[in-house]
Amino acid sequence: MQTLRVALAERAYPIHVGAGVLDDPAVYAPALGGRRVAIVTSDAIAPLYLGRLRRALEKTGAANPVEILIEQGEQAKRWETVDRICDALLAAGCGRDTLIVALGGGVVGDLAGFVAAIYQRGVPFVQIPTSLLAQVDSSVGGKTGINHARGKNMIGAFHQPLAVIADVSVLATLPEAELSAGLAEVIKHGFILDADFTAWLEANIDALRRRDTQALVHAVRRSCEIKADVVAHDERDSGMRALLNFGQTFGHAIEAGMGYGAWLHGEAVGAGMVMAAELSSRLGLLAADGVARVRELTARSGLPVQGPALGAERYLELMSVDKKAAGGNVRFILLEAIGRAVLRGGVDPAMVRAAIAACSPPSPAAASR
Amino acid sequence: MQTLRVALAERAYPIHVGAGVLDDPAVYAPALGGRRVAIVTSDAIAPLYLGRLRRALEKTGAANPVEILIEQGEQAKRWETVDRICDALLAAGCGRDTLIVALGGGVVGDLAGFVAAIYQRGVPFVQIPTSLLAQVDSSVGGKTGINHARGKNMIGAFHQPLAVIADVSVLATLPEAELSAGLAEVIKHGFILDADFTAWLEANIDALRRRDTQALVHAVRRSCEIKADVVAHDERDSGMRALLNFGQTFGHAIEAGMGYGAWLHGEAVGAGMVMAAELSSRLGLLAADGVARVRELTARSGLPVQGPALGAERYLELMSVDKKAAGGNVRFILLEAIGRAVLRGGVDPAMVRAAIAACSPPSPAAASR
Repeated sequence: MQTLRVALAERAYPIHVGAGVLDDPAVYAPALGGRRVAIVTSDAIAPLYLGRLRRALEKTGAANPVEILIEQGEQAKRWETVDRICDALLAAGCGRDTLIVALGGGVVGDLAGFVAAIYQRGVPFVQIPTSLLAQVDSSVGGKTGINHARGKNMIGAFHQPLAVIADVSVLATLPEAELSAGLAEVIKHGFILDADFTAWLEANIDALRRRDTQALVHAVRRSCEIKADVVAHDERDSGMRALLNFGQTFGHAIEAGMGYGAWLHGEAVGAGMVMAAELSSRLGLLAADGVARVRELTARSGLPVQGPALGAERYLELMSVDKKAAGGNVRFILLEAIGRAVLRGGVDPAMVRAAIAACSPPSPAAASR
Repeated sequence: MQTLRVALAERAYPIHVGAGVLDDPAVYAPALGGRRVAIVTSDAIAPLYLGRLRRALEKTGAANPVEILIEQGEQAKRWETVDRICDALLAAGCGRDTLIVALGGGVVGDLAGFVAAIYQRGVPFVQIPTSLLAQVDSSVGGKTGINHARGKNMIGAFHQPLAVIADVSVLATLPEAELSAGLAEVIKHGFILDADFTAWLEANIDALRRRDTQALVHAVRRSCEIKADVVAHDERDSGMRALLNFGQTFGHAIEAGMGYGAWLHGEAVGAGMVMAAELSSRLGLLAADGVARVRELTARSGLPVQGPALGAERYLELMSVDKKAAGGNVRFILLEAIGRAVLRGGVDPAMVRAAIAACSPPSPAAASR
């Protein structure tokens, strides 16, 4: 087991990374402190890992936790689910001294974390992410929340966990496409801030896709470290933290244009990173070799390197309503080199159009004109 | 205008107290900073003060604010209202740089503050409390939230405002009973922490009930100062902050026993403070003269000094499920002297029964036995 600490202004918390760490009572003990425990998990995850978690908690003396199961999938991220979890907590008589344990992927983490943020004005929580994406992304940064009919993650709170327990052995049951979607975040962290890590990934991407334990532990740990560094510098999501959105400006356009859920978020980020690298090159920031490395590592991660055929105009339109746009001026995260990202506003739309066109087929509508 | 500063770990904010301060553009300017403004107010308050607020904002260059009206009353504190406010903000294209201005009593403040806490993971807000209760209580401490079918204020967040604008001239339109309910909080602050302020209140309670401007400014200012001191020492609601619950353990039992809304919260706190003083005396903490002063100032504030005829057993039952009870052991806020409160657990239930019996008529059921 490896442990890294996320250092925040108010409080630091540990991320435990390892194989089988889910079963280790020692990782739970410091967060328990005599608290009542309520586990929030999903229909899909419960049969796989709830028993193991229950046994590990029992060994620390935390017997009979409240167990709350939610439906699987993004559509669970709505108020009705939050209300149902709060209702179950109140029905069980859970007070402010309750510890919420989120066992599941990003949806469970976002939901349970948001409940922890607002239940009786805030209770502590522990994250046990069970997807690679959640292990490297959602468990660092304290972002929690639900969707609104008018937009994803429009309602939420920053609420830091007491601890994150990232057990790479649970990734064995993760579907191939979800592993790749998680790898999108891993390679993104290398592209924006760490050239050495990118080189390590280029050498180990096949081991990661084979789910080699040691490779996964290193990738999750280094990825969390990079994100934790960024977040520690910039807890409230401005400035440096914006760099984490590399690939997402284009990626959000892909997701919105195709209808949310048609592409996995990580898949959209994959194609989005290639587009952003292409744009960086066209603006004279990144050498052609850099673009090729982004494209190749993305492809080897099992991710698309081309966006869908929405047509460049539709991409631009979708990007301009993205919530990252401040005052209508879309800001792009671009690369100056592998491992060095920058934030740029005022980019010539013609350049953006050209980058999109280079990385996506023409739209059927445009082609028929 | 008088200005006091609430000093918190992360950030300090000003409370501006005065007559006509609502119309003063200078109090808004520092919070605006080019931000989009969204005003949340109620059907009842909008016709009285929305125009004045709009004109004051216009003078600072903040024209065309988004205006969101909610229904009046406690029943508005539910998720549907939060969702409707978020929907209006999203429909108007409000981003993270939006400033929410809450214009109204405690319900508007709690709701708009909660929306500010969770809209796009948090936006800044300004409180313009229009009831005495909201001016002295809800605008200090950062507590925001809504009710759940299973309990009041069970869902919420701590979210501090950028500024509070307490205009005592708007109290002219406040119904008599609501003025008294606000005075309950004012005199409470004296009882628990400030003997000099209590003496001042004893000399000025009639002027306050006549809504004398100077008296109101002093009472609101000193009351906010006392609460702000407590909150600054103890932002997350434990230890010292518990002293602010003086009268509320009994008061919550009265509210719950009568059905929420039958008694105003301040009325329940009024009778509850007398019960707590009586209990303090029976435990040998407070002299008889102290109990008499609590009873007299409460009565002169226009508040009940007797609880309803629920019967002592029912009071005890209702208090033991109150969320302030830790591990089933009800903790009481008691007085050692006027201006000096203490927190006590493990109080002999026989003493509590006797104090309740001394301050409420026997229940009809008990009387008929």
